[in-house]
Amino acid sequence: MEFHHAGVATDDCDALVERFGALFDATIAHEQRFDDMTIVFLELENGYIELLEPRDGGVIAQYLDEYGPGLHHLAIATDDIEGALEAARDVGVDLVDSEPRPGAWGHEVAFLHPGSTGGVLVEFVAR
Amino acid sequence: MEFHHAGVATDDCDALVERFGALFDATIAHEQRFDDMTIVFLELENGYIELLEPRDGGVIAQYLDEYGPGLHHLAIATDDIEGALEAARDVGVDLVDSEPRPGAWGHEVAFLHPGSTGGVLVEFVAR
Repeated sequence: MEFHHAGVATDDCDALVERFGALFDATIAHEQRFDDMTIVFLELENGYIELLEPRDGGVIAQYLDEYGPGLHHLAIATDDIEGALEAARDVGVDLVDSEPRPGAWGHEVAFLHPGSTGGVLVEFVAR
Repeated sequence: MEFHHAGVATDDCDALVERFGALFDATIAHEQRFDDMTIVFLELENGYIELLEPRDGGVIAQYLDEYGPGLHHLAIATDDIEGALEAARDVGVDLVDSEPRPGAWGHEVAFLHPGSTGGVLVEFVAR
């Protein structure tokens, strides 16, 4: 499996696009607006940084209230997301999504509960 | 620039090696013991997950006390770490390390202050 992206919760996506652009030579690969958040994928040579800014409540707004801005999740790409979820179930990991579901940028995704993964919110992304 | 690793603070490195091994098909690429922490690099196809467990006080022990286990930093590899620090300085980023210094696994590294980078502790790694 491979690194797909690091998710970053922010209250100022535009400022972070500019900053990470200057720091990492990273440019916008994809931008998408949901009801409760705006997401921006910044492209690295071998993956992405996903910026998540809340729009009108929702989980990222709650996250920012509780923890402040910063690293939010780690997304790992796999060719077999069903098999990855099965393997996770087999070792006793709590699944946030028991089945893959449509995520940002048209990807099939599934999240694992951080309580089962060392405090890391893990997202599987179908490659 | 490219993703190099995601750093994860943990109080049980062995358990997390086993769990991430089962979840991501990731095996140990490097292991190193410092005075104040043990670090383990788990290999993905295009980068690493770095597990950090405190041994006897130190910054990871402090981090766990304050925030608990989970994502700790994001490491980006660059061919020109001096140039990357210069660019960071130019846009007003606070540097934790004003010069590259020896880090884990024989890499030259330099950290940026999370207050300047959207709450993300960024590490540059010389490629």
